[in-house]
Amino acid sequence: MNFPSRLIEEAVQEISRLPGIGKKTALRLALHLLKEDVATTCALSDALLNLRKKINYCSNCHNISDATICSICGSTYRDKSLICVVEDTPDLLAIENTNQYTGVYHVLGGIISPLEGIGPTELNMDSLITRIQSEEVKEVILALSPSMEGDTTAFYITKKIKGFNIKVTTIARGIAVGGELEYTDEVTLGRSILTRTVYQA
Amino acid sequence: MNFPSRLIEEAVQEISRLPGIGKKTALRLALHLLKEDVATTCALSDALLNLRKKINYCSNCHNISDATICSICGSTYRDKSLICVVEDTPDLLAIENTNQYTGVYHVLGGIISPLEGIGPTELNMDSLITRIQSEEVKEVILALSPSMEGDTTAFYITKKIKGFNIKVTTIARGIAVGGELEYTDEVTLGRSILTRTVYQA
Repeated sequence: MNFPSRLIEEAVQEISRLPGIGKKTALRLALHLLKEDVATTCALSDALLNLRKKINYCSNCHNISDATICSICGSTYRDKSLICVVEDTPDLLAIENTNQYTGVYHVLGGIISPLEGIGPTELNMDSLITRIQSEEVKEVILALSPSMEGDTTAFYITKKIKGFNIKVTTIARGIAVGGELEYTDEVTLGRSILTRTVYQA
Repeated sequence: MNFPSRLIEEAVQEISRLPGIGKKTALRLALHLLKEDVATTCALSDALLNLRKKINYCSNCHNISDATICSICGSTYRDKSLICVVEDTPDLLAIENTNQYTGVYHVLGGIISPLEGIGPTELNMDSLITRIQSEEVKEVILALSPSMEGDTTAFYITKKIKGFNIKVTTIARGIAVGGELEYTDEVTLGRSILTRTVYQA
């Protein structure tokens, strides 16, 4: 693709680095910004820089936060004895959006992956163990992805907190609500039969 | 949607102003930037600001350009007696990408639309007439969209340059290459029969 200007080319190159945005979309976005006021581009540019440079993480659960302690950890309505361990912020936001969870979180910032050289020391693992030791935690919910890495991480955490007499649970795996039974993969369907629950009418 | 941080919320708000990007995608992009180096965000932010603030337009054809005269108008290989009139830069880029056109362009910067209050004075219309009068132009190609507004603009230009003995053409309308005849709309199919061309074997 030929660009009429070096400025356009640079903008397209930078925009197309974002996930899911190709060169054509990037060009469309760049030309859109040229049509808008300078203020629009300034606001976008400032918001991105502010986000990246000023962002804070909760010192307790490592969630994104404006203050030292995030609004979830700081809330008196949340059950501090229940910690949900998630891989990263999007997972936390997804669970928050269900409005079904009243406990607190712990964001690992990744998942144990020997292939990519990510071990427990690269993650917020020590602070999780410290929290469990010091706080009055009754249950730890492992909300990790159903993959090799997720299972490894879950196994590591379970082993680490074995001595503390804490209930360790994992989010239910099974057929999605609205999902078709006949199109569900064998592993999920097999597990959902093994981990069947009592029918509540 | 609840955001854990005001900074995230502001970034999402600004990103989702872009066309075709909703709140969910904006959040994904914002969280992606947080995972990357600060330098990535700085580069993106700078590229956008530079593009918007430093952009130049060719004084001849109003195409986006780094210099006073764009590379197309400045090229000795382009036929200056052939001007292709387009609505905006994306149209110009689309025609350039075909590698079929050797003339020069004129970017109107919009299209005559009485409903939106856009008249000839809001567009780069005077400079087009001046170009036609002063330069040795033999043909003007109207590459405008096949809409009411496009037809109005084409009619206006044709009327304005009537006295200059210049050939005025319009890009061919018809069935797209690879398009199915039975699914083509009536207007396009009707026109393509009326404006049939001699078959070249």
